[in-house]
Amino acid sequence: MESVFQILKKSKKSKARVSRLKTVHGVVNLPNFMPIATLGAVKSLTPEELKKIGVEIILSNTYHLFLRPGIAVIKKAGGLHKFMNWKGPILTDSGGYQIFSLSSKRKILEKGVEFSSEINGQKFFLTPEKAIEIQEGLGSDIAMVLDVCPAGKESYQEIKKAVRITFDWAKRAKKIKKGNRQLLFGIVQGGIFPDLRKKSAEEITRLNFDGYALGGFFVGEPALAKAMADETEKKTWQAMKRSIKFLPKEKPRYLMGAGKPEQIIRAVKLGVDLFDCVIPTRNARHGLLYVFKDIRHLKGEFYEGLHITNSRYIKDFKPIDKSCACYTCQNFTRAYLRHLFMSQEPLALRLVTIHNLYFYLSLMRTIRDNIKTGKL
Amino acid sequence: MESVFQILKKSKKSKARVSRLKTVHGVVNLPNFMPIATLGAVKSLTPEELKKIGVEIILSNTYHLFLRPGIAVIKKAGGLHKFMNWKGPILTDSGGYQIFSLSSKRKILEKGVEFSSEINGQKFFLTPEKAIEIQEGLGSDIAMVLDVCPAGKESYQEIKKAVRITFDWAKRAKKIKKGNRQLLFGIVQGGIFPDLRKKSAEEITRLNFDGYALGGFFVGEPALAKAMADETEKKTWQAMKRSIKFLPKEKPRYLMGAGKPEQIIRAVKLGVDLFDCVIPTRNARHGLLYVFKDIRHLKGEFYEGLHITNSRYIKDFKPIDKSCACYTCQNFTRAYLRHLFMSQEPLALRLVTIHNLYFYLSLMRTIRDNIKTGKL
Repeated sequence: MESVFQILKKSKKSKARVSRLKTVHGVVNLPNFMPIATLGAVKSLTPEELKKIGVEIILSNTYHLFLRPGIAVIKKAGGLHKFMNWKGPILTDSGGYQIFSLSSKRKILEKGVEFSSEINGQKFFLTPEKAIEIQEGLGSDIAMVLDVCPAGKESYQEIKKAVRITFDWAKRAKKIKKGNRQLLFGIVQGGIFPDLRKKSAEEITRLNFDGYALGGFFVGEPALAKAMADETEKKTWQAMKRSIKFLPKEKPRYLMGAGKPEQIIRAVKLGVDLFDCVIPTRNARHGLLYVFKDIRHLKGEFYEGLHITNSRYIKDFKPIDKSCACYTCQNFTRAYLRHLFMSQEPLALRLVTIHNLYFYLSLMRTIRDNIKTGKL
Repeated sequence: MESVFQILKKSKKSKARVSRLKTVHGVVNLPNFMPIATLGAVKSLTPEELKKIGVEIILSNTYHLFLRPGIAVIKKAGGLHKFMNWKGPILTDSGGYQIFSLSSKRKILEKGVEFSSEINGQKFFLTPEKAIEIQEGLGSDIAMVLDVCPAGKESYQEIKKAVRITFDWAKRAKKIKKGNRQLLFGIVQGGIFPDLRKKSAEEITRLNFDGYALGGFFVGEPALAKAMADETEKKTWQAMKRSIKFLPKEKPRYLMGAGKPEQIIRAVKLGVDLFDCVIPTRNARHGLLYVFKDIRHLKGEFYEGLHITNSRYIKDFKPIDKSCACYTCQNFTRAYLRHLFMSQEPLALRLVTIHNLYFYLSLMRTIRDNIKTGKL
């Protein structure tokens, strides 16, 4: 049987690699980036547009879909692909991260996690088994195990406990997983502590998942990462390197919730294959657009941010980025986009989201090309 | 020289006609309907989507564009078409209606109308000459004269005064209009008073405009029309008939701000060619969708409203309208649209707007077909 994961090219300069991941709904070229379709839609965009942008795989949030519209609805629709009419691969998270970050009244027990709906306060109890069952109901191409994802600032003891429970839950998830064609990824925790990262990576990989995710990095919001002291940032990257060291080369690696373009490049060089992040779509909604300074050389300050609401763009009839081939840059000017933004026209949201995602997908294409040609 | 307006078929059953209006940016098949691009964008849609829906002409609001982004910006962009990247015909209103309906501090003088910006309170003075100049700056295909548009409930004396000033302003507008290829439509006022409608129609048509608009009908919101007593409604239609009687047959007729599907059909039978209304797009935003019961026969209750947020659609995996060929109905279910709506996902807005506009454009196509085949 052909392997679902195939490495096409290994860099000689770094640990970066170009690879392919086969899923039921198609092949994903790695390294790649997943836009986030929290509730079964990438904010403001159609599946058709995602395809045009070059998106190969999206991420949907089990927690949100579980609360609204509920898994029964999506199962009855024939799964998430049919429900939202996206024909490509989908990765679903386990719901754990949202429970930890959104639900104020959550309680972690050995058996699972108790939480209240952020919508109406209704109480739920999620177990690793239930997380698998839900994702099987959603019918995603890649499911994630339920893990305990503490904030980066937690104590050594707390993180150690999280590593232990994460391993226990991973075993239970693996045990119950049906042998269908849905891939299952394990998650490595351990905060910024090298020994805990090693321990977690060794434990989780022993269970032989289809791929491995690095959890607990840059946890919370991008702003948090920004506020990190240099020292913590240094430790973060060391811990990431440490985690990856104990992951098998022949399996895909996914850095959850990251990141900024420069973080993605840095992680790719450490051997990471897959990314997701709210940054491009969220920044778009806040009017912060990405412009490549030099797409060929992904070094130094190869891009810059453009604040579209700035008054300097009132009569600027150039596209956001003259070298960009996205629908927005091919058809609309900065002046028009600024006008739509200032007037809170809903079209603004779409057009800038298209651009920022196109930037990210271009970045990933360039990364793959640069690995292939020996530049990265 | 070939006429810009050409009647292709006159109904034998009614005063309805099928015709073509040539503009600088293309031909408009009449009867037709103009979606509203208030600020240079039909809410949430791209020009590309409008074209796919079958939209032939859009309406943009001079008042709104004048305040934001300002005419200087649009002029510098090379006109409204280039600014918003819509290549088809555009009709711009004069700004008068918005001044009367939105600006609380407006003052009508013989010379023009003084008003305050609804955005920042800044004071402006709009004259019929200035309204022409602005619309020439916008570069629309059809410009409207500045008129005095009183609410339907105003007294005979008030409406009489409005008719007088409207005529005076129409003369001034006509006088200053450059002989470029932008068409200019005059506006008939007169409320529900048959003698004033006759007077206004006779006066305005004497000035020989490229087309004639019927103003002051169903003025205000759709809800107002709904609340009208039967008697007032009867008078409205009589006044409309009266107005049209004194309009030349060889010029296009435009009923401003109307209307519901059944109102459009009724007006078409009286000889109206062009319509605009916020109803389809506004209703879409409120989750009220149109479904044809029988598109072939535009009689009786040929359509119905579907409230997409109704819980009966939670697990309804049919399209909004199984006979509809719009992008939304071809790709998404009621259950999915309801979910997007309940979750306030911005994609919801787009998809339902596409459907409702497609319904209106289908209605207009069917009306033209039915006139051609002698059914209407």
